[in-house]
Amino acid sequence: MQSLGRTLWAIPEGYIPSDSVSEAHDLVSHEAACFLNTGDRDADVQITLFFEDRDPVGPYRVKVSARRTLHLRFNDLSDPAPVPRDTSYASLIEASVPLIVQHTRLDSRQPAMALLSTVAYPATPQ
Amino acid sequence: MQSLGRTLWAIPEGYIPSDSVSEAHDLVSHEAACFLNTGDRDADVQITLFFEDRDPVGPYRVKVSARRTLHLRFNDLSDPAPVPRDTSYASLIEASVPLIVQHTRLDSRQPAMALLSTVAYPATPQ
Amino acid sequence: MQSLGRTLWAIPEGYIPSDSVSEAHDLVSHEAACFLNTGDRDADVQITLFFEDRDPVGPYRVKVSARRTLHLRFNDLSDPAPVPRDTSYASLIEASVPLIVQHTRLDSRQPAMALLSTVAYPATPQ
Amino acid sequence: MQSLGRTLWAIPEGYIPSDSVSEAHDLVSHEAACFLNTGDRDADVQITLFFEDRDPVGPYRVKVSARRTLHLRFNDLSDPAPVPRDTSYASLIEASVPLIVQHTRLDSRQPAMALLSTVAYPATPQ
Repeated sequence: MQSLGRTLWAIPEGYIPSDSVSEAHDLVSHEAACFLNTGDRDADVQITLFFEDRDPVGPYRVKVSARRTLHLRFNDLSDPAPVPRDTSYASLIEASVPLIVQHTRLDSRQPAMALLSTVAYPATPQ
Repeated sequence: MQSLGRTLWAIPEGYIPSDSVSEAHDLVSHEAACFLNTGDRDADVQITLFFEDRDPVGPYRVKVSARRTLHLRFNDLSDPAPVPRDTSYASLIEASVPLIVQHTRLDSRQPAMALLSTVAYPATPQ
Repeated sequence: MQSLGRTLWAIPEGYIPSDSVSEAHDLVSHEAACFLNTGDRDADVQITLFFEDRDPVGPYRVKVSARRTLHLRFNDLSDPAPVPRDTSYASLIEASVPLIVQHTRLDSRQPAMALLSTVAYPATPQ
Repeated sequence: MQSLGRTLWAIPEGYIPSDSVSEAHDLVSHEAACFLNTGDRDADVQITLFFEDRDPVGPYRVKVSARRTLHLRFNDLSDPAPVPRDTSYASLIEASVPLIVQHTRLDSRQPAMALLSTVAYPATPQ
């Protein structure tokens, strides 16, 4: 299977609410970057987080194995630092091989959760 | 009418909740790939599902007739295997003629449902 | 101001629920194509609707004035035929001058509404 | 870090509900343009709002600092005029350096909020 997608992606929107009405793993408020690596080589991924009032933090490193998907929760990132809750951020994703990225949030601050999703922006040097 | 779109699409996000507050067909939790084939030839579509911890499964085969739309629920796929519930997956869509794909989820685990949608990623070989 | 965007757009997802918990205009279940015409010339827009099991219907004709937006509800289309409720459809949008299209649905079948939105697919002949 | 993205973006959908069930800042109904400036130069951003039945209003001016994100609420724009509530609008965004834009709305007219989001349309002269 061929590699598909890009090696550079951006997600300007990011916000993890600190509250959830449920602590069940699937229903806790979370934000995810969903990766699809269709190719035969593992992807080494570096994520840099941008904030409104401080310097970028990163890189966070994850691996997306060949011919696998990974639905990564920003909630779970811890090295070099946890992602602050209730804080606006953005993310830049750089991969060693092409892949595809989709951004999703589940917000369960209220008894009725809300969802959003969009394919991330395939960023190429201008 | 001319063919519009691409022959290769990717949807990195995929997740079908096993729970629904309603069993009504239109309100049950579901995930859909919406196809639009504007052209004069039927489209033979092959879908491959990718997972986090096992090999890809597929192809699933569907037909999108000429000058028709098809709102395919992943819930309804059964051959070669049903789509597991409560499991992260991604999908790659290959069509015999160009068409356009949009991804939608209705989540009705709670009394108030949630929706998400995005045009899929038009994938071309890198 | 220059014209921006494309003259051909596609929205594979379409579905207007027949039910709404509210009859208030802003809260009734609806589906919209939001147009932005940044240029100095009015745009004549033709919309064709595609279905799963019958021939396409259209064109529906609307005008998007120069330097204006139009948030068109598919609910309001009536000529050549109303848009059937509780029915999967897709739409193809052709404009006389470039413009930009975003797709939005508000679903208020339940006391808590749900929203989805995506920029439409900028279709160009393959 | 290199500059990524585009200097011209469009968001055809825009609507700020006047009602909210909560006055908490994070839960009040709002619409946001999320900017990511990955580069080393500050971005001077001009936003023009388009309406259905009146001339465009703007430019609104904001700065997105180098290597920062900004989650700008349209609710907060006041110069040259506040953004009218319960009114359909669209926006055109012009930046002095490339950046990336994502559009998000949180609607809390009802006890259960709803969310939508999409990467904005990267507009280039036709």
